[in-house]
Amino acid sequence: MRARSEGEFLKFLPKATHVITWHFNKDWYALAPNLKLVATPSAGRELVDYAAAPEGVTVHFGAYHGAIIAEAVIGFIFAWAHGFFRPELAAADARGKTWVKTWPRALLGDKCSLVAGSKAVILGYGRIGKAIGAKLEALGVEVEGFGRKNLDQLPAALKKAAWLILALPSDTGTDNFVNAKLIAKLPRNCVIINIGRGNAIDEPSLIKALETGRIAGAYLDVFHNEPGPLFKVGSAQKGGILTIPKRKLPWNLIRMPHSSAFCSEYLKMCFEELKNDGLI
Amino acid sequence: MRARSEGEFLKFLPKATHVITWHFNKDWYALAPNLKLVATPSAGRELVDYAAAPEGVTVHFGAYHGAIIAEAVIGFIFAWAHGFFRPELAAADARGKTWVKTWPRALLGDKCSLVAGSKAVILGYGRIGKAIGAKLEALGVEVEGFGRKNLDQLPAALKKAAWLILALPSDTGTDNFVNAKLIAKLPRNCVIINIGRGNAIDEPSLIKALETGRIAGAYLDVFHNEPGPLFKVGSAQKGGILTIPKRKLPWNLIRMPHSSAFCSEYLKMCFEELKNDGLI
Repeated sequence: MRARSEGEFLKFLPKATHVITWHFNKDWYALAPNLKLVATPSAGRELVDYAAAPEGVTVHFGAYHGAIIAEAVIGFIFAWAHGFFRPELAAADARGKTWVKTWPRALLGDKCSLVAGSKAVILGYGRIGKAIGAKLEALGVEVEGFGRKNLDQLPAALKKAAWLILALPSDTGTDNFVNAKLIAKLPRNCVIINIGRGNAIDEPSLIKALETGRIAGAYLDVFHNEPGPLFKVGSAQKGGILTIPKRKLPWNLIRMPHSSAFCSEYLKMCFEELKNDGLI
Repeated sequence: MRARSEGEFLKFLPKATHVITWHFNKDWYALAPNLKLVATPSAGRELVDYAAAPEGVTVHFGAYHGAIIAEAVIGFIFAWAHGFFRPELAAADARGKTWVKTWPRALLGDKCSLVAGSKAVILGYGRIGKAIGAKLEALGVEVEGFGRKNLDQLPAALKKAAWLILALPSDTGTDNFVNAKLIAKLPRNCVIINIGRGNAIDEPSLIKALETGRIAGAYLDVFHNEPGPLFKVGSAQKGGILTIPKRKLPWNLIRMPHSSAFCSEYLKMCFEELKNDGLI
């Protein structure tokens, strides 16, 4: 049965045994005495209150995202290393649509590099982090993953990180984990990638590091506020998080609108996973 | 010994036994009685006249490019599939530099797809084609490579090609191999990638297919003329190849300035290869 609105969903709930939904509020459990499964396609834990689930109700978060997100990270890393985001292309207007005055070949000469042989440090080494790591390793990248258990070895790894990839959840004390102090430990050619949650990065410090060339670049799929300061005109001071004045953002910040797990096949993948896990 | 000009190079030539050079003219062999090796970092056969090499002289073309070019192709394919080139980002100005008025999340919702499980057809299955194929297979892509021997099976493969990758040399009758007739055999979601030589594509037919949505996109690293019609303002009619009027190019044409083999490590890779092959 498909509910086309929250109202309809709540009307179906008393008889429902299995629900697939993006979000599920704490007080809805009381409306659903027959409930056995709450499944969400989301990987994030914010939208379904799993802690409040009564005995007998399984809460399932989608785990198929790793495969999609890992592909987005692969796309960014290899496109970045091979010049697709270089400002020289934008300057020459070579990025599609218009003819150009300058053939920007010479400008790209020393701007590209090989990814194979470089080192990626992945912070948050759960299912998504590991999915990213596996694909990178298949392409010749040296991968080191970090969770709570081996966090003491992180400083040494950061020194050699060409790619610092964040796949951290937001509910485990990860606020502003990547701050000026951590950034200071990275090599200048490092590129920071965040496909986890936006809270993990101190955004003003990151912007400063990008502007000054302290690190080479960043790809943010997530932000402290969504849509928030790093995206929206006129809200730069809202929320009190981003205190840099509203000015041009650095070219080496690549933003995506929380879309790394977007994939036209996602609903099919979600159902397949539930079947494979014996939940439906 | 390092020659800093062609004049200096020709002065060194009579005593030279091994030369590494981008180009070598036919009549230079007569100036070099002691010559044993002409090595070029280039993968293309245009710049060193290998047919005219006298007995005892080995001509070596760089073969390390496959690893670099394959990474550029991986970057493009995965970045494309996961929305990094979408015009919705440009419209919202999310592609770095400026703040945006619209958070383009909803616009990207159905524009991303999984690469794993899709099919890539590689035309030209020499060292470079195979290097691309190997990386794609490692990422779960179904790969079919074509050379002269199995060309009769190409039409059937084209029907299912999500990615048509050209790694053809220019000196083997490949002019305009990809023309309107071939394009008509491709599925509408197909993306054409050319990292071989620009002569292989009938450019006006490709542009038309991109404009009409007959195929989904293209990434051209090479062009009939370089820098030529598809790049340079005011030269759209020069060379008699591109006859479409000078107008906006479609957003789904991604151009790069013959840079797919660019890599800051290339000279190191070139020397390593010559050593590994026992040539120096």
